[in-house]
Amino acid sequence: MRRVHTMLQLPKKVEIIEVGPRDGLQNEKNFVPTDVKKEFISALKDAGLKELELTSFVSPKWVPQMGDAAEIVADCLDSTSRNIVLAPNKKGIERVYMTDCKAVAVFVGVSNSFNQKNINKTTAESLSEVLPLISELKAKDYFVRACISTAFYCPYEGKVEEDDVLALCGEFVKVGVDELSVADTIGMAAPHESYSLFSKLKDAFPDVLMTAHFHDTRKLALANILAALQAGVTRFDTSAGGLGGCPFAPGAAGNAATEDVVYLLHRMGIGTGVDLGELLKAVEVIRPHISRPIESTYFRLNSVSV
Amino acid sequence: MRRVHTMLQLPKKVEIIEVGPRDGLQNEKNFVPTDVKKEFISALKDAGLKELELTSFVSPKWVPQMGDAAEIVADCLDSTSRNIVLAPNKKGIERVYMTDCKAVAVFVGVSNSFNQKNINKTTAESLSEVLPLISELKAKDYFVRACISTAFYCPYEGKVEEDDVLALCGEFVKVGVDELSVADTIGMAAPHESYSLFSKLKDAFPDVLMTAHFHDTRKLALANILAALQAGVTRFDTSAGGLGGCPFAPGAAGNAATEDVVYLLHRMGIGTGVDLGELLKAVEVIRPHISRPIESTYFRLNSVSV
Repeated sequence: MRRVHTMLQLPKKVEIIEVGPRDGLQNEKNFVPTDVKKEFISALKDAGLKELELTSFVSPKWVPQMGDAAEIVADCLDSTSRNIVLAPNKKGIERVYMTDCKAVAVFVGVSNSFNQKNINKTTAESLSEVLPLISELKAKDYFVRACISTAFYCPYEGKVEEDDVLALCGEFVKVGVDELSVADTIGMAAPHESYSLFSKLKDAFPDVLMTAHFHDTRKLALANILAALQAGVTRFDTSAGGLGGCPFAPGAAGNAATEDVVYLLHRMGIGTGVDLGELLKAVEVIRPHISRPIESTYFRLNSVSV
Repeated sequence: MRRVHTMLQLPKKVEIIEVGPRDGLQNEKNFVPTDVKKEFISALKDAGLKELELTSFVSPKWVPQMGDAAEIVADCLDSTSRNIVLAPNKKGIERVYMTDCKAVAVFVGVSNSFNQKNINKTTAESLSEVLPLISELKAKDYFVRACISTAFYCPYEGKVEEDDVLALCGEFVKVGVDELSVADTIGMAAPHESYSLFSKLKDAFPDVLMTAHFHDTRKLALANILAALQAGVTRFDTSAGGLGGCPFAPGAAGNAATEDVVYLLHRMGIGTGVDLGELLKAVEVIRPHISRPIESTYFRLNSVSV
């Protein structure tokens, strides 16, 4: 039996959404000085990253690290990047309205138990709060990104059903979100699951920006990204230095590192617009303020400081 | 445009060839006691590994670590596993003949420069020595495995041409080798290259056991394995604990770790016959004798000792 083609089905170009300044930093216990955050964001933009989660308008009582969100937004907006701010609820979105930021991320977990432990609401309660807010944001012409967490596995419930993910995403698409960022929050997905879910999502929602968000907890992030590429995904959330994780998800450490993902993509001839040398400089900016070593392979092999 | 299928093309079953006792240990500077090697091999077999490179009949002057090869072979053969011994040349094969071992691995690099630095012969010189030895081995009914190194990149020459790999493999197939183990010796291959080369090799040599050998130097091993699976490869060389590398290849550290590869395969529903819990016990046997920490992700997440 001869094969018809000897090329993987891969895109020529991919967009990287840098989540380090928000998702990467939110769990750092020691407060990172606001000026360092600004320098980090600026260095990331210098490296060619054009879409970034800058910060989060979450309660400073719960996440003191994000207490400087207003100042970050005031200083870090620019007209050539998509500067996204996370806003978990009505209060957060009201704070967004007081800024010039025009791109908002909201989030909901597919799993009920996860939502309850994370934000003390069921998935349905969470949805009924957030959907009207999205309608309002869209009426005001905001870019809206919906982050769908625990789309593969839940730390409390185990395997998450694809149909539940599709149904939840459908609710967001109905109210007009621009982007779905679908996440393997605890780094449990395997490549066949990545391929299967993203194939179905791409089929079901062809007109929405479809972004895959993988964690490298079990070292499957790059294989999952390869599978998602084959399913037609051309957008990936990553975090410079592999910073981040999720404090409410046991065992969830390490977003896929931007530099490891970009290296993989470049090696396959896929353009990202990111300069890896400049990216390492951005990682160097934040490294002294992070409580654990930078474990991304590309950084370890190429940083002049290690 | 609707997709026709939403499943990756994956096999149901894969064979793992454990190279830790040979490829993994050969570069350890401190001599690992022979009894420890035997215990390691025995624990690997207990974990369900059925094909293993046990040791190497290389000159003990060059590789003192393998100086106990005859004793290893005398004690570790069994009738239910394929026990392979590396023999780099005529002298080595003569030593094999003095044992009961019936499976021999020979090796040649595709790249001339690599062969010259590695064994002080051009690829052609190396071939003209080894091909008659293989004919002899086959006449005596030995299982012969040809290890093709630098099949993707050479540390001295850069990118290696696919046609050169296919031509070299063709020479081995002509003299009747049972298996080709095609290696990314310095861990430089990217998934599209893995898919492309292995698709062509599978097409060109459908009647030979085709094995892929990846290093995790740049964390691309698992993605390369995923691509090779899609190209039809169902055999992978791996090393328990990720031991090994190549002393003559700058920057070449870390075979793909057996436990990381088996975890990936099992998560995708692909059978290997390997018990991961037992495999960790084998890694524990060898760990105190290895000069660097065990860096495989599965070991770090699951070993009771770390």
